[in-house]
Amino acid sequence: MTCITDICALIILSMAQKPSIPKGMRDFGPKEMSRRNYIFSSIKNVFEQHGFQPIETPALELITTLTGKYGDEGDQLLFKVLNSRPHEGRPEKKEQMREAFQQTLDRNTIAPVLTERAMKYDLTVPFARYVVQHRNDITFPFKRYQIQPVWRADKPQAGRYREFYQCDVDVIGSNGLWNEVELIEMIEQVFDAVQLKGIVIKLNNRKVLTGIAEVLNLTDKLIPLTVALDKIDKIGEEGVMNELRKQDFSEEAIGKLRPIVQATGSNADLLEVLKNFLASSEVGMLGVSELETILNQCEALGFQSVQLDLTLARGLNYYTGAIFEVQHPEFPSSICGGGRYDDLTGIFGMPDVSGVGVSFGADRIYDLLLQLNLYPKETQQGTQVLFVNFGDQEASYAFSKAAELRAKGIATEVYPDNSKMKKQMKYANALSIPYVALCGESELKNNTITLKNMATGEQQELSIDQVEITSN
Amino acid sequence: MTCITDICALIILSMAQKPSIPKGMRDFGPKEMSRRNYIFSSIKNVFEQHGFQPIETPALELITTLTGKYGDEGDQLLFKVLNSRPHEGRPEKKEQMREAFQQTLDRNTIAPVLTERAMKYDLTVPFARYVVQHRNDITFPFKRYQIQPVWRADKPQAGRYREFYQCDVDVIGSNGLWNEVELIEMIEQVFDAVQLKGIVIKLNNRKVLTGIAEVLNLTDKLIPLTVALDKIDKIGEEGVMNELRKQDFSEEAIGKLRPIVQATGSNADLLEVLKNFLASSEVGMLGVSELETILNQCEALGFQSVQLDLTLARGLNYYTGAIFEVQHPEFPSSICGGGRYDDLTGIFGMPDVSGVGVSFGADRIYDLLLQLNLYPKETQQGTQVLFVNFGDQEASYAFSKAAELRAKGIATEVYPDNSKMKKQMKYANALSIPYVALCGESELKNNTITLKNMATGEQQELSIDQVEITSN
Repeated sequence: MTCITDICALIILSMAQKPSIPKGMRDFGPKEMSRRNYIFSSIKNVFEQHGFQPIETPALELITTLTGKYGDEGDQLLFKVLNSRPHEGRPEKKEQMREAFQQTLDRNTIAPVLTERAMKYDLTVPFARYVVQHRNDITFPFKRYQIQPVWRADKPQAGRYREFYQCDVDVIGSNGLWNEVELIEMIEQVFDAVQLKGIVIKLNNRKVLTGIAEVLNLTDKLIPLTVALDKIDKIGEEGVMNELRKQDFSEEAIGKLRPIVQATGSNADLLEVLKNFLASSEVGMLGVSELETILNQCEALGFQSVQLDLTLARGLNYYTGAIFEVQHPEFPSSICGGGRYDDLTGIFGMPDVSGVGVSFGADRIYDLLLQLNLYPKETQQGTQVLFVNFGDQEASYAFSKAAELRAKGIATEVYPDNSKMKKQMKYANALSIPYVALCGESELKNNTITLKNMATGEQQELSIDQVEITSN
Repeated sequence: MTCITDICALIILSMAQKPSIPKGMRDFGPKEMSRRNYIFSSIKNVFEQHGFQPIETPALELITTLTGKYGDEGDQLLFKVLNSRPHEGRPEKKEQMREAFQQTLDRNTIAPVLTERAMKYDLTVPFARYVVQHRNDITFPFKRYQIQPVWRADKPQAGRYREFYQCDVDVIGSNGLWNEVELIEMIEQVFDAVQLKGIVIKLNNRKVLTGIAEVLNLTDKLIPLTVALDKIDKIGEEGVMNELRKQDFSEEAIGKLRPIVQATGSNADLLEVLKNFLASSEVGMLGVSELETILNQCEALGFQSVQLDLTLARGLNYYTGAIFEVQHPEFPSSICGGGRYDDLTGIFGMPDVSGVGVSFGADRIYDLLLQLNLYPKETQQGTQVLFVNFGDQEASYAFSKAAELRAKGIATEVYPDNSKMKKQMKYANALSIPYVALCGESELKNNTITLKNMATGEQQELSIDQVEITSN
C-alpha cells in the first residue's frame, strides 16, 4: 500500500545506504543451508529413532516467563519487543513512563514500562512453560525435541552469534537414570552420523558438587564454588583457586579442595577419589551412586566416550543431578551440553517433575565440521538436468519433458529465457548442474532429448525412459 | 546464575500466575508438527524438483530496511526491538529521548529513538535486501525458496496469527514469462501433492490495470482503483463502485469500468473483452499479450487451474506484471499469491532486476487440510516398538536390542523407569505405539525378544533378524 512517490523517495534516500543486517546475525545462502540441513537432519533422525517427538514454541514469550531464569546477566541479554501501544488507555502507565524517562533514562527503568514480550533466550525455559501450560494433553514421560533459533544480545564475536539454533532433546516426568544413558547413546550416535570422531562426553553430577560443599562446610557457597570450577578450562587450576580466595574461601577449604581439582585417572579411579572425599555427605554419596550406575550401564553397552570430570559444573543452577558437556580436541568450546533438573517446571507452578536433556550447538558443530572438512560432497543436491531454452516452441516441449524427468525423481530446470547458448551454459556451470538437455527440431520429431554430460562432454539422444541419472 | 532463593521467590510469586504465551502466537505440539512438516516437505519437494534452492534470513532486520515498504499500516504492525543501550555514550540521543517523552509519549515519536531493529514482516523485502547485499555471489537467474516465520502485530482473530510461516518461491533476474508458467505448474503440483482438489489459480496483470486507468483517463488514480477492485470478493460489485465514488471517480468513469468488473466467460472470452477495452493503451495491450502468452502455454501443457480474473488486483504496489492468487471454494481467503515485480531491489540501490514469485500460506493450508480431513494417517510417524522396563538387567538387554532394531530403521524406545507394567502399557496406548517388546529371563537366555502386537494382542518370540515391521 506504499504509494509510488514514497518508493521513489526511498530509492533516492537509500542510494547511498548499503543494505546490511543487524550485527551478530547472518544470512544463510544455498550452500550454508544444505550443510545446516545435513546437521539438522542427522540430529532429527537420531532423535526420532529414539521416539522423541518435535514441538515448537513461538519466537516471543511474555517477559514474565523469561526474566529471573538466566540470572541478571541473562536478563540483560534479552531482546525485548516494544509494546505496540505503550500506554494507550492507561494514563497511569503514561505517567510512569514520563517519570522513568525524566529520572534516569536507564534501560532497567525504561524496559518494564515499554515491553511485555521478549525473544526467547533458550529452548529450556519455554519448554518448561509449555509442559506446564499443556500438562493435561501430555503423556508422561514426555520425550520431546525442539530445533529452533534463540536470540541473545551478546557482544558479537568470532563464533558467537546473536541469533543461533539450539537442538534440544529432553525427557520430562521420569526419574530413571536410563534417560541419562539414552542421552549418552544419542550423543554418540549424532556425532557418528556426521562422521565426527574423537568427541568426549564429560560427565559430572550436581549432587557431587553439593556434597563437596558440604564436606568443606561451605554449603552456603555452593554457587560461587560451581561458578569458579566452571572456569577451570579457561583460567586453569590456580585461576580457580584465586577466584575462590576472592569469594572468601579459606585457605583450609581451598587446600581440601585441591585433591578433587587435581584428580586424574580412569572413571573408576575418579569414583574412588569421590567415595573417599564424600564419605560423610549423604547427598554427595547419592551423586556418586548415580554416576556409578550411569557409567556401569554405559560400559556394559559399549558407549566409550564418557569421561568423568570432577570440575565440570555448568553455569545454570537449575541442574540437580547428572551434568554433561561434549568436547572435541579441535574446538575451543563445548558442542553439546545439558543435565538433569528436578524442578524446572516448579517455576511455573508445577513442582516435583524431573527432567533431563541436552542441547546440541548446531552453529558450533557447523563450524567444526567445516574446519575438519567433514561435509559430504552431496550435501548440496541441486538441479541435475538443465534444459536449454531455444525459443517458445522448444521451451514448451522442454517443459513437458522436464515434468517427465521430475516424475522420475530427477530435479530439473528449464532455462526461463531464450538467452544466448553461452549464457545458458555458463549458468549450468556456475550451478554445477551435471547434465544439460538440448531439444531442437530433431528431438521434437523423435520425442527424445539430447543429454549432454557436462563433465565428459559426451552427448546422447535418448527417450525419457532411457534416461538414468543417479544422485551424485 | 539465578540463585536458589530467587527461584524460590519466583515459585511463590508465580503460583497464581498461569503460564501463557503472547496473544496471537501458538505452540505446536507433536501432532501439529507432523502435519506442518507434511505440508512443508510437500512444498519443499516441489521447489527442489524445479531447481529452487533454500536460503534463510535473520528474524531481525534493521528498521531502515523494513519501514516504508508495507505502507503506513504495515509500519504500524512491525514488532520493534528495544535497543540494548538506548542512549549509552550518546548524550544527544538521551536528550532526544527525553524530549520525545516529555512531549507526546506517542509511539511514533518514541519508537525511532529506542529501536533500530524489527522482526521481519514478510520474506519478500528481506529477500530483496539479500539479493542486493550478496549480488556478487549470486548466479542469475536466481531461483530461491524460503520457508520461515514472519511477525505482524495484527489484531489477533480466527485464522490470523501474529507469528506465521510463509513459504516463498521466487526467480530473480529473468524476464521470461516461462517463469510465470513454471510457478503455475508448481502451484498445481504442490496442491496435488497434498491431495487438495478444486483449487483455482486466479491470474491478472498489473499492466492491464494500468491500461484500464489509462483508458479511463485516470492514471493518477491507479492506486485507489486497485485498492477498490481488490475488495470485490468482500464487498461485491456495488461496494467497489461506492468505494470509487468516495475516491471521486466520476459516474462516467464508473460506468465505463462496469463491463470490466462484470465480464464473465472463458479465459478466451475475457481476453477479447480486454482487447476491445484496452485497444488504445499501449501498456494495457502489453499486459494482454503477456496474459495471452502465459495462458496459451498453460493450455498447451495441460495446466487447467488458471482462470483470468480482471478484478484481481493484489494490495502490494510493487507488482508490475502478472499477479496470482490461489483460491479454494471451501476457504474464505486466498491460500497462495504473488506476482511479478520489476524493481523491488531498486529500493536497495540495485535497479532493473525483474523478479517473480509466489508465497504459500502454510497456516491457511494447514487449516484447510484439517477442515477437509486430508491429512494422511501416517503423518505422525512415532515410535514403533516400546521395550517394557523390568529392571536394570532386563533394561540393559532391552537397550542393546533396541539399538539393533533402530539399525534396521525401526523407531524404538525403552521405557526409562521400572514402573508397574500397567503404567508402561498405558504409555504405549496413549502414544499409539503399535508393538511392545517384552524381555525377561527366557528372552535373555535365548537372545530373543517377545513382540506383542498391540492391536491384535498376538505375541511372538523372535530374534532381531526375524522382526519385520513396515511403517504404519
